[in-house]
Parts: sequence; C-alpha cells; structure tokens
Amino acid sequence: MLKIDVIGTVGEALADDLLHKTVVAIDVLRATTVMTTALEQGCTGIVPVETVTQVKQTQDDGDLLGGERGCKKIAGFDFGNSPFEFMDGRIEGKRLIMTTTNGTRAVNKAHRASHLFAGSLRNAAACAAAALSKDRDIALLCAGTQDVFSLEDGLCAGALIVELRKLAGSSPLAVNDLGLAMEAAYLQSKERLKEVLLACSNGERLTRLGFKEDVGFCAELNASSVVPELSGGVLRKF
Amino acid sequence: MLKIDVIGTVGEALADDLLHKTVVAIDVLRATTVMTTALEQGCTGIVPVETVTQVKQTQDDGDLLGGERGCKKIAGFDFGNSPFEFMDGRIEGKRLIMTTTNGTRAVNKAHRASHLFAGSLRNAAACAAAALSKDRDIALLCAGTQDVFSLEDGLCAGALIVELRKLAGSSPLAVNDLGLAMEAAYLQSKERLKEVLLACSNGERLTRLGFKEDVGFCAELNASSVVPELSGGVLRKF
Repeated sequence: MLKIDVIGTVGEALADDLLHKTVVAIDVLRATTVMTTALEQGCTGIVPVETVTQVKQTQDDGDLLGGERGCKKIAGFDFGNSPFEFMDGRIEGKRLIMTTTNGTRAVNKAHRASHLFAGSLRNAAACAAAALSKDRDIALLCAGTQDVFSLEDGLCAGALIVELRKLAGSSPLAVNDLGLAMEAAYLQSKERLKEVLLACSNGERLTRLGFKEDVGFCAELNASSVVPELSGGVLRKF
Repeated sequence: MLKIDVIGTVGEALADDLLHKTVVAIDVLRATTVMTTALEQGCTGIVPVETVTQVKQTQDDGDLLGGERGCKKIAGFDFGNSPFEFMDGRIEGKRLIMTTTNGTRAVNKAHRASHLFAGSLRNAAACAAAALSKDRDIALLCAGTQDVFSLEDGLCAGALIVELRKLAGSSPLAVNDLGLAMEAAYLQSKERLKEVLLACSNGERLTRLGFKEDVGFCAELNASSVVPELSGGVLRKF
C-alpha cells in the first residue's frame, strides 16, 4: 500500500525519512508559491540555495536573484518573495537563484529523495498527480516557520492528500496520523481558505508587512498546473 | 489575550514552553483516560512515574501498581492500562503508582508548569473549565507515541479548544497554528470520533492487541466530569 507521510516542520524531517521517496516540499507563504509563479512566467530554472553567500557564488551572467529574510527583499536582489513581483516580464527566459528562510531549506533537506516537487495550494491537484506518477511512497514536507508548524503548509498537505485519494481511486493509501489530521483540517477549511490563511500566524505577519494580497493569491486552490521539479539542483517545470 | 498553544509531542515540548502555564497533558489512548477512570472509581491519588524501578521505589503498603509497556500489563502489576480493569472495585480507597510509555512522561515533563491537568476526550469539557479557572496561558501537551504525533491526542486538543472558546464567550483566544489545525480537524471528525480513533495508528494497534473496546470507551466525548490535577506529585480529583 502506498504510504503518505506528512512531516510538520523541516526540523522534524530526518534525511532517512525522505530517502528513496517522492518528496513534496511545501511553503505556501510564500516560497513554493513563488517558485510555481516564476516558472509560469517563463523562468527557465530556479536554483534554491540556503545562504546569501551561496546565492552570489551560484550566480552566472544573466541570472536574476530572488528571496527574503524576515519576509523582506534582500538588498541588491532583483526580486523579494512576493509572487506579484514576477509578473512584469523580467523573469522570462532567465534563471533565478533563490534563498528564503524556510522554503529553500525544505527543498534542500530533501536532497536524498528520489524525486522532489514544490507544492502549494495553487498547484495542489497538479502536484498530487506529478507525485503519484513516480510510483513511490510520498513524504509531504511542510516547511513551517523556523521549525514551528505553520497552518497554511499543513492545510496544503491536507489538500494534497485529498487530491491523492481522488487519483488513487479504489487503491487505499496508508496516511500517517499527522496526515489524517491535516486532511480533516483541510476538509473543514476548504471553503474559506483565504480567510483561514489571513488569520494564521504567517498570514497575520504578512498582512502587517503590507503583503495581504500575496496571502489571497497563495490561497487560490488549483489555480495553476505548473509543478516545479528538482533535477540536478535546479527546479524546472515537471 | 489568553494564549492557547498545542504542542504535538512530548519531545517537542521545551520545559520553558510550559513554565508558569496551565498545562493539560493528553494521552487519550489510554493513560489520561485511565487516570480519569481510576479517580472516578474511588482511587485516592495517582503517582505518575517514568520507570518500573521508580514504581517499586515509590510503592508504600497498600498501594496498587498500574501501567504498560508495549500496550501490555507489566509483570507483577495489579493493573495494565485498560480503563475497564479499574471497574471491579479494587481501586476504591487505594493509591495507584502508574507508569506508561508516553502518558506519564507527558505529565512529568510539565513539572515546571503552574498547574497540570490530565485531559482526555471523556473529560474534555470539564478539563477545559478546570484549565480556564486558573487564569493563565494554557499549553495543551499531546503525548504522542514515542515522539511521533498521534491523531487521537491532537483531536482531543481540538476538542479542548472548542470547549475553551465556548467558556471564553466573547473574549478572543490566541491559538497557535497547530491548535487551529487541531480545532478544524476535531470539528471535521466530532460526529464519528470512535470510527476515527479506530482507524488511527494507536487505534489499529490496540485493536490488533485485543483492546478494541478500550478505543470505543476512550472516544466517548464528555462522558466524565472528573479532572485529574497534579499537586505534590500526585494526581487527584480537581
């Protein structure tokens, strides 16, 4: 039976929990949503790295830089971590080097996984299909915020489980207890995702910092069919 | 504003997270349910300890011993960890020394808390009222199972939040993200708690070991008004 495990934060994930699995890294507010948007807008590939120093070391001619610290754009970077910044045409045909506080950490934590996708509420259905196509046990790795559970990532994991069950049809899935809790929480919340995301810890913080529109955008379920997949250290369209 | 934090497993709880707070330790299957039942049945006090050696060191004349390892009664003990064992009159007027794999650990982890209650689905409403009466921030400490999240404990935390909101009336509560997720999961599951508990990891394990009736008993919401409260290392009726 296919196993689906939800992991609540990056810090809880042991590398062995991810070994030989298909991993979906989830940072709804906002890294994995931004990754999806950048690829939609014609970005040729995203290199997720953990530090600003690594960004500079990785940058080649023509590459653009994106990311945040404390939700804010890093000095000298082309983009912050708002999906709307990627909609003005600048990213088309360019490679993006990206670092964020939690999301790029989640992606890199999964370097021993067989397959790695970036999941968000916007691409949940497409991401579930991509993950299932690899025919391996699946770990849904919630980024969380500095090793504390974040509601929006948990709800996204729940949405992915709902989509995985639809696709699996009559084949049962072995979902771990945290996954069952997130599935139930998502089913309870799915008609008012925007409202719920605005009220959770990161939603409140982003609203205070002037990014309320971002939260609404990140809450739009299945608005995108683009699924970022990691290969050779670069995220590209699946 | 009163803060309500849910902590997903004993291992995640830092002692400082519990300092000066009212803590509710939750191990629905089955330790905190058993504690409630033993007090209901006339037990004069429960001493929760972590090891079998400590049990022997703590035992005085007339004390009875209870607990489990691997869900099974410990050799030489009077009781295992099934609530039904405590219904034959033996526990009346006696003190119980108790050790279980996760539940007693959760209780003892909270030794720096201002107040400590044992919560379960059976006493959720009464436990919420007891916790709120102390007028301090509240930590709902899910025992989990060997540092992995257990659904039944999370749903109980959700039930406690629902009861706390009823009691708080128009006063808003600041619930952390994991608490919001558990509240939503509980609301989604409350009409079929028994079924959900039988399908989760510990419910399946207990059913395999012949304790299916225990799971049904532990799933009975608000069936008891007894709330165990820790004082001087002993749990007694609040």
